[in-house]
Amino acid sequence: MKAYSMMTKKELMAQKAELDRQFADAKRKGLQLDMSRGKPEPAQLDMGMGLLDALNSDSDMMSMEGMDTRNYGLLTGITEAKHLMADVMDVSAENVIVFGNSSLSIMYDMISRSVTHGVLGSTPWCKLDKVKFLCPAPGYDRHFAITQHFGIEMIVIPMTATGPDMDLVEKYVSEDEAVKGIWCVPKYSNPQGITYSDETVRRFAALKPAAKDFRIYWDNAYAVHHLYEDKQDTLLEILSECEKAGNPDIVYEFCSTSKISFSGAGIAAMATSAANLEDVKKTLTLRTIGYDKVNQLRHARFFKNLEGMRNHMKKHAAIIRPKFEAVLSVLEEELGGLGIGEWTKPLGGYFISFEAMEGCAKEIVAKCKELGVVLTGAGATFPYGKDPKDSNIRIAPTYPTAEEMAEATDVFVLCVKLVSVEKLLQDAVAETA
Amino acid sequence: MKAYSMMTKKELMAQKAELDRQFADAKRKGLQLDMSRGKPEPAQLDMGMGLLDALNSDSDMMSMEGMDTRNYGLLTGITEAKHLMADVMDVSAENVIVFGNSSLSIMYDMISRSVTHGVLGSTPWCKLDKVKFLCPAPGYDRHFAITQHFGIEMIVIPMTATGPDMDLVEKYVSEDEAVKGIWCVPKYSNPQGITYSDETVRRFAALKPAAKDFRIYWDNAYAVHHLYEDKQDTLLEILSECEKAGNPDIVYEFCSTSKISFSGAGIAAMATSAANLEDVKKTLTLRTIGYDKVNQLRHARFFKNLEGMRNHMKKHAAIIRPKFEAVLSVLEEELGGLGIGEWTKPLGGYFISFEAMEGCAKEIVAKCKELGVVLTGAGATFPYGKDPKDSNIRIAPTYPTAEEMAEATDVFVLCVKLVSVEKLLQDAVAETA
Repeated sequence: MKAYSMMTKKELMAQKAELDRQFADAKRKGLQLDMSRGKPEPAQLDMGMGLLDALNSDSDMMSMEGMDTRNYGLLTGITEAKHLMADVMDVSAENVIVFGNSSLSIMYDMISRSVTHGVLGSTPWCKLDKVKFLCPAPGYDRHFAITQHFGIEMIVIPMTATGPDMDLVEKYVSEDEAVKGIWCVPKYSNPQGITYSDETVRRFAALKPAAKDFRIYWDNAYAVHHLYEDKQDTLLEILSECEKAGNPDIVYEFCSTSKISFSGAGIAAMATSAANLEDVKKTLTLRTIGYDKVNQLRHARFFKNLEGMRNHMKKHAAIIRPKFEAVLSVLEEELGGLGIGEWTKPLGGYFISFEAMEGCAKEIVAKCKELGVVLTGAGATFPYGKDPKDSNIRIAPTYPTAEEMAEATDVFVLCVKLVSVEKLLQDAVAETA
Repeated sequence: MKAYSMMTKKELMAQKAELDRQFADAKRKGLQLDMSRGKPEPAQLDMGMGLLDALNSDSDMMSMEGMDTRNYGLLTGITEAKHLMADVMDVSAENVIVFGNSSLSIMYDMISRSVTHGVLGSTPWCKLDKVKFLCPAPGYDRHFAITQHFGIEMIVIPMTATGPDMDLVEKYVSEDEAVKGIWCVPKYSNPQGITYSDETVRRFAALKPAAKDFRIYWDNAYAVHHLYEDKQDTLLEILSECEKAGNPDIVYEFCSTSKISFSGAGIAAMATSAANLEDVKKTLTLRTIGYDKVNQLRHARFFKNLEGMRNHMKKHAAIIRPKFEAVLSVLEEELGGLGIGEWTKPLGGYFISFEAMEGCAKEIVAKCKELGVVLTGAGATFPYGKDPKDSNIRIAPTYPTAEEMAEATDVFVLCVKLVSVEKLLQDAVAETA
């Protein structure tokens, strides 16, 4: 089919008439579909039910270091859980603390602690006039919500195919002492599925921050979340790169099993330098006597090791891959060559990112809603919920069935076409006016 | 035996010579005993192993509201867990949020949130010159550590047999706007085992704070932790008292199953007014997508209801009661009538509180250590670790066996006698000088 931008006004009008007809038809169907939920589907969770058998009333509840996991103590987690989470992050177990069920909570607490008590002896951020964070966008809305909550000014950093625009990152970090951190999802990023290139990771490790309490918040949420056996992204391990670059304390890395075992009932971990760990432990010990070691033991016994986890994730991939492919196939078939949108084809993670024509995202999301298809709110992937181009839309294919995803994507492409045609017609009017 | 204060100098000297001999004998035994650990013993934890069978790979994982507990969502907890924890606190489930494994973490987060974001719209405490907390003492060291961590000034409130000195509490709360809270363990208090009287609870509920963001931190840690079937303390339910007194928002109540199921792997909850709950949820949603609902379901299925929990706690009582009695029996036998110490005889909770002669606690703890018996550090039960009278010592009988506790208490009373005699001799010298 002809690219929309090549169409005459008459052709566009005809196209719009046809799309309006299709829209009316679709509306009559009264669909109820949801492409917004970045969460596992029940079949994935069923794969993890063995976790509940990993411990029962006959189990030995001692951890590797001889600790009764049912009693108080061991602030930083049991050894076998540290090893498991360290392997997921490709770091040493010495650098790891295993927490409760949520890496988001760890990140929130790290920010909160920096606000009230500073970082490794620095001035608490609440005592400063201005604190800023760099926010590669499109990105994860819950990251942005945390920094917004603490009154931290957020600066948008455009994403490229190899990660955040590092020229800009280097400029801000080296020149502005108020810049205290950057949010990163370095592997299969939310929502684009981009994995940072080796060069990007090395440039992160070699940053020369104006603020000595600047930290990279490295949210490695999708470390083992591959969609394919034969095509997989790899991410350079950042802790050792930072160490090599003489910047050992510059990064906090986070991960969890929320999208591996059970969402909200998994285990979460942080990896960082020895100095940062000591700093964290000092305040952590005031907040808790210890995290849920029984659940840590359950996870360690169930997965055994990284290999066990990888095998488990192959089963997840088998379930969600067809859904990604269903979306991508409809997008390619219906929008290929039209020049009214671009989308990512990720090899892992939980999302597909769609880039509509400028100024069209909100309207597409609204039109989809009118047809009964829920999408993540346009703008959600940007700080303050404001996408400057109003073009990014996040598609979450995991929760519905592949059939539902195909059906929802049919609706989506219809709305993309309709909104794009209307936009082009408006632009044409504006030009002739 | 004669009270030490009635003894002549000569009698005291003779007494000291005998005690020195006993001390030397005891030292040769090379004991290794610990009376400091306020944690369950393994047999108590064994009683809870059925918890691990409450869910297995064949279980229905849906909560009462039809929520898949294995997936994201339901910020405030599943209905059955809310009911269970509400019943423990004797409040309505509507007033409850169920969190993760630690009530200490809830309290820390409530303080932290108040510091950074205020309380129900009040000025964040970090923006104030001075914030103060009332600290009934002796009390729980981890409470005091949190307020100290946030630079909150702590004011000691003496404990009485019916709870904190309410005249003082009322005075501070009504007169000083900087007073933002008070730490309370209202039932079987740590370390004295005191339960606040109905009058005390009503006076709390009727407080007229100068600060509108003043809150009572009501740590109901030992709500169902009775030692006896026939002799039990009861605590007036404070939320409804506050409501009746026109003070619905003045209290946050906390509890957990840490000393009911597994320590550190239980569930914890908060109860408060609807307005406070809304305030909390607003920030809670930034920190987490939801707590561990699988563990909530496991607890609800295992205990079923309050009755089930009470029956479970009878088994705990059967295990730890003999240990309390072993301590109390040695104390009575060896120190009764000597006038050199007083101690509490709690009907529940985890501790016995010993009051030595003024200026003797540190020395008693040091001497016990010399004989291989570890006690909680003297002063730990007071803000900043400073017991103004240097007289309170916390005894934790639950972890060792009854035999070990009796043996440790033998050492303890020996040290109490020796230090007391030395003190009386010093005082006599000082008087004649």
